[in-house]
Formats: sequence, structure tokens, C-alpha cells
Amino acid sequence: MQIHAYAAPSKSAPLTPYTYDVGEIGSHEVEIDITHCGICHSDLHLLNNDWGISSYPFVPGHEVIGTVASAGGAVRNVTIGARVGIGWQAGSCKECEWCEGKFENICSTAQPTCVGRPGGFANKIRVDSRFAFSVPDGLDSAEAAPLMCAGATMFTPLRDHDVTKGSRVGIVGLGGLGHIGVQFAHAMGALVTVFSSSPAKEKEARAFGANEFVNMRNSVDFDAAAGSQDLILSTASADLPWIGLMNALRPKGTLVLLGVPEGEFHVPVFPIIAAFKNVAGSNTGGTARIAEMLEFSAKHKIRPKIEKYPMPKVNDALERLGRGEVRYRVVLEA
Amino acid sequence: MQIHAYAAPSKSAPLTPYTYDVGEIGSHEVEIDITHCGICHSDLHLLNNDWGISSYPFVPGHEVIGTVASAGGAVRNVTIGARVGIGWQAGSCKECEWCEGKFENICSTAQPTCVGRPGGFANKIRVDSRFAFSVPDGLDSAEAAPLMCAGATMFTPLRDHDVTKGSRVGIVGLGGLGHIGVQFAHAMGALVTVFSSSPAKEKEARAFGANEFVNMRNSVDFDAAAGSQDLILSTASADLPWIGLMNALRPKGTLVLLGVPEGEFHVPVFPIIAAFKNVAGSNTGGTARIAEMLEFSAKHKIRPKIEKYPMPKVNDALERLGRGEVRYRVVLEA
Repeated sequence: MQIHAYAAPSKSAPLTPYTYDVGEIGSHEVEIDITHCGICHSDLHLLNNDWGISSYPFVPGHEVIGTVASAGGAVRNVTIGARVGIGWQAGSCKECEWCEGKFENICSTAQPTCVGRPGGFANKIRVDSRFAFSVPDGLDSAEAAPLMCAGATMFTPLRDHDVTKGSRVGIVGLGGLGHIGVQFAHAMGALVTVFSSSPAKEKEARAFGANEFVNMRNSVDFDAAAGSQDLILSTASADLPWIGLMNALRPKGTLVLLGVPEGEFHVPVFPIIAAFKNVAGSNTGGTARIAEMLEFSAKHKIRPKIEKYPMPKVNDALERLGRGEVRYRVVLEA
Repeated sequence: MQIHAYAAPSKSAPLTPYTYDVGEIGSHEVEIDITHCGICHSDLHLLNNDWGISSYPFVPGHEVIGTVASAGGAVRNVTIGARVGIGWQAGSCKECEWCEGKFENICSTAQPTCVGRPGGFANKIRVDSRFAFSVPDGLDSAEAAPLMCAGATMFTPLRDHDVTKGSRVGIVGLGGLGHIGVQFAHAMGALVTVFSSSPAKEKEARAFGANEFVNMRNSVDFDAAAGSQDLILSTASADLPWIGLMNALRPKGTLVLLGVPEGEFHVPVFPIIAAFKNVAGSNTGGTARIAEMLEFSAKHKIRPKIEKYPMPKVNDALERLGRGEVRYRVVLEA
């Protein structure tokens, strides 16, 4: 059988139609008829081989929504015709301690959906069925697409770090990740502060559920936020004012790194020691967290704000994303 | 009443006898007849005003063992004649959320024992009775002194980060802190690896309970430790090979900063994010942890390795500590 996709033939090149063959479906695999695929900043990084792990022709896409077209004989978790979502990960070893603990995303053989195999800018995709998640009724398919990666990325650290009613949560950067994180944290009952370098975003930040807005370029405001946050999620890829962000944590607070700045994370040691502060890394989520995130999103009406493009217009969408103009996530429609 | 102490009249000056007056004992205070006082590296830092918080004449000392000579009317936790220990902290507000949660060490008004008030290089000391801990039978007074600061500093993160049987714990630096940390972690059932730049210390590391020894200057050995540790406690004050230490963590592992290097902590962000790694700060401990640490030390026969000096020889002891010759802690005897 053939799958019709869009691929970059070489580094940073525009995407062109690309067809590839797949054989018999594996016993644990599902084949998905794709209806929507979000575009994540990491698709741009992979397109440009910024991380040195891309191969070409490269088919991006790891925020997939679609319906199950066929399933291998051992598949039990989804049925033909079911609406499912697929995120960053498409496979893992199933046997290591991390897979057994539902932390498949840190399995040493974790298989990304669009690295070393073709992703979701296509009419179909095949994945290990463990990584095809039922999408609850009540979620719009186009809006659900960004939840699969951006949503998982924001939900996981909020849960891992026990955010609950009254928690003071900072979100750094109001973009594809941040605007979903604000909604999650607000729905969990947290007091949410957006830290941004774009004061023009304050109004929208508050509309998504932020209680406070700190312009990091205004040193008076930034200094006034000292000691205010239990948890800060940093989504920005730019080099950030690390000292100011660590300073904004309360004692025992945690700064979670989610975005990947080019430069190093660097801070003086003494303030970390003095106030038992923490820095943590996090990315996407294990299967239990992703399933929980989808249920939570349906229950609390979490709605990524998206711009839709027909899939053949993928290059226009990538260019707009690259220019930083998207508010706040692009979703391709089949 | 007068207390007879040893004080530095000015920055970095040798200590000389110094007498100060105290008035009526406060209702929540205890007065201790000091029998022993350990010397901590932070006493040297304070003597040299490295942290800009010292005042002179400066009486160092915050690893005190002695007996209760008198107590204010409201004191309930200790009785006259009891053997007690005092560590880094001598007071706090009692009312904030941190004090209420027994994290008095991060109270914003935490009062260090020898900063802004005279410390334990003296015949007597007065402190808030909450910070005078009963010393269990079975602990030698001289050996118990270093437990009050160095012991608390190592025990707290081992407990905070849930070390248990089979945990893989790395200790960076085999000095005054590290040699106690190895004993604690070993007694908790952990598999202990010492990371050191002094290969000559391997034999002693193993004698204290280490299962493995990694010479950080040997890149082959250091690289081979990649992905091996759940928790690494960094006690060294020198700038450390941060990337190598983060690399030595397993997924979800935590590097705890305890020593205070002059330079910044700096690492690339991507490996932290990819493997959900963590960096945490910790210092001394709250009152519940310190009481637990003393009970644990008595039960598991934790024995700091000490060199004793008569208190009048305090300058000789400080010089030897400053030269890095002490194995592993100096204790002054009254």
C-alpha cells in the first residue's frame, strides 16, 4: 500500500508531494486515516536539521488526529473507525523499567513519530497502537491536534509537580505551548502568571486565564515578582533571563525547562542552595499522562487557538510559523 | 553573666580570647555549657567574609555539643543537664508557613548560630531551645559535633529525595561532608559511588561504605559512569565538571548542589529536557530532619572521622583546615 505525504527532499527545502510504500501491518500496529496534523516548532528544527538527527526526504508531523483504518491482530486498545490522536512518540521497547512505569517517553529506544520514519504530514500513518490515544467526545479534531504534543508537554510537568488549587504557576512565553499551559494551570485552580517579553500579549494572556502578567523587559516589574512562584514552566527557545526566573521562585520552587535555548542554562549556585530551589527538565509525556491530558482537556474545555491550512498549503504554513506570526498553533487539514 | 569565646577581631585575623556579656535568659532560650564544637568550611568562609555577611569581632562555630546549664521558663523540649547539639541555625520566626512545616531553615528570618551573633567557639552559648537537639545515647560527643551541620546537610537531601534500599547514590567529594554522606547513604541501603578528583581517597571511600569510586580526572572512567546514578550530592566547593555529573544521572535523576563553587552552575539544556533530569539546592535541615538524623546516626553507628584540638589551639586547627589537610573534620574540645 502507498502513503501520500509531504516531504522536504533536503535540509530546509520546501516540502513536495512524496509517496512511500508500506507492507503488511504489524500485529501491534494501527493505521490511521489522518484528518488533521498540527505543526510544532520542533518540526521546523527537524526540517533544518538543527538537532543533527534528521534524514531526508523528511516528512514532518507529530500532532496527528485521524480515524483508525486498520489494526493488527494483537491490538486491543482502539477499534476500527475510532477517532485517535498521535503525538511525539510512535514506539518504545515495552520492556524496560520506564516503559513498565508508563514513562515510555524516556525509554532509551523511544521512537519519535517523525524522526527516522515518516510523520503526519500525510494522508495516513502507522504506529504502535499504544501511542494512538482515543480522543474524547467534545474535543474538536482540529483543536485536539496541538494537544498531542504541545498539550502533553505542558500538562506533564503541571501534574508531575503537583499543581493544585492555589498553586502559584508561572508560564514563560505565550506561544504554541504557553497559551495551552495557561489554560491547563488555570483549570487546575492555580494562580497563573505569564512571563513574557511581549507586553502586547497581556490581554490575550488574561483571556486564556492568566491572573498576572510580567513583562520581563521591565526590570521593576520583574524584580517585583521575586519569590512569587511555586512552579515556572519555561517554554521559550530564546536565551532567557535565568537569574530573574530563578529569583521569581518561592523557596522550594521549581523552574521546568521545556523550550530548548541554544545557549547554556547558567545561574549562580548560592541562591539555589539557600532556598532549596530546583531546576527540572521535561518533555512530552508518557502514555498515562497523555490519556489523562485528553480527558482533562475535554472536561475543562481546553481549546488551543489555531490557524487552519489545507495540507497542500503546508509551505505557506511553515513560513508563517517560521516568521513567528502564528497565534498560536497551525493545524493542517487533510 | 559573661561568656568566654574566641573571636577574630577583623577579617581573616587569628582568633583571640574574647569575652561578652549576656543578660537575663529569654523564656524560650537555653544556655549550653559547651564541651565540643566542630569546625565547618563555612566558618572559614565567614572568617574571611567571603559571603559579605560577617561582622567583627567574629566568633565562629555552629557544630556545638554541650549540656543544658539553664533554661527559660517556657522551655519544654530539653531539661537542665541534658546533652544537646546545636547546628547552623539558632532561631527563626516560628510563625511562617516554613516554620510551621518544620522547614525553619528556609524561614526568611532564619537566624544562623554564628552570623550576627557569637557562635560556639566559646565556653557557653544561648539559643532558642527549638534548635537545641537531644543527643541520643550511643553517640560520642566529639563525633556528634560534625553531625550538627555536616550531618544535617547530607542527611536532608538523602531523605528529601527518597533514598532507600537499592537507590544509586553518588557523592561528589570525600571531605567533611562527603565522608558522612557516604555513611548515611550506605546505611540507607543505597549503592554508593564516590566521585572524586583525588584517586588516593578510593581506599577510604570504600571503608566508609562506597561500592564504587570514580576518578573524575580519568575521562574513561567518568564517561563509563554515564546514566548510572539516581541522586548525586555535590559537596565540593571547587568548580566541577557539571556536564559530566549531569551525564552520570539516570533519567529522572537529581543532582543536589550542597557546596558553593565561586563560578556559575552551567549546563546545556537539551540533555536535561530529554531525560527529565533535575538540579536541586539543599542546605542544613529543618528541626524534624535534624532530630531524625541524630536518631538515625545513633541507630546505624554513623561516625564522622575527626581530629581533635583543644579549643585554645583553635588557630592551629583553622590553619590545618585551610590547607586542606584535615581528614575529615576538626572538633575543638573545651
